[in-house]
Amino acid sequence: MTTLLVLYRRPEGGSEALATLERRYRDEHLPHVAQTPGLRGTRVWRVDGALGGDTDLALVAALDFDDRGAMDEGLRSDPMRQAGRILREIAPGLATFLVVEDAPDLLPG
Amino acid sequence: MTTLLVLYRRPEGGSEALATLERRYRDEHLPHVAQTPGLRGTRVWRVDGALGGDTDLALVAALDFDDRGAMDEGLRSDPMRQAGRILREIAPGLATFLVVEDAPDLLPG
Repeated sequence: MTTLLVLYRRPEGGSEALATLERRYRDEHLPHVAQTPGLRGTRVWRVDGALGGDTDLALVAALDFDDRGAMDEGLRSDPMRQAGRILREIAPGLATFLVVEDAPDLLPG
Repeated sequence: MTTLLVLYRRPEGGSEALATLERRYRDEHLPHVAQTPGLRGTRVWRVDGALGGDTDLALVAALDFDDRGAMDEGLRSDPMRQAGRILREIAPGLATFLVVEDAPDLLPG
């Protein structure tokens, strides 16, 4: 399984700016994401803090696809293009998009 | 659900150093993690790259607990203390520990 792990930094403007980002993320961005062909699962987390340090992250999303080919196809789809367009408007420069692969060979036993 | 999302940066020393880190992570660190009381699930990813940029991350792990109380209790347990001791040896300064909460209220519909 290939996952797009998206890390969102906090916007400038404190809790009001974050609330606006969250609202538009839910109401405008994620509905397009949900229509992406090949998307197998979506998980969204709020970042509560970091152990032993600080973090500038506010949200993390994990979008699962069967494999890298399916993810690339999903990224090229109309829903994902629209989702991307909205994201650049509501969270400009705040997101890091990691492509990650499940590593069952690293799990013990 | 509360999740400990651990982001691991690449060690110095290229692919050989990374292979050693992965081996010790699997053989020495994760077996202790697996014995942590209250741990509901473990997912480990290799980072393949970042879209539209670079990343210094190599691995990501997601450790699920029922809630923050269960996570804190798990972190204080003997298995997690041993896992932490090993981690400081095999990946010193390379890990960021994010405490994240599922945000079902952000998912559309």
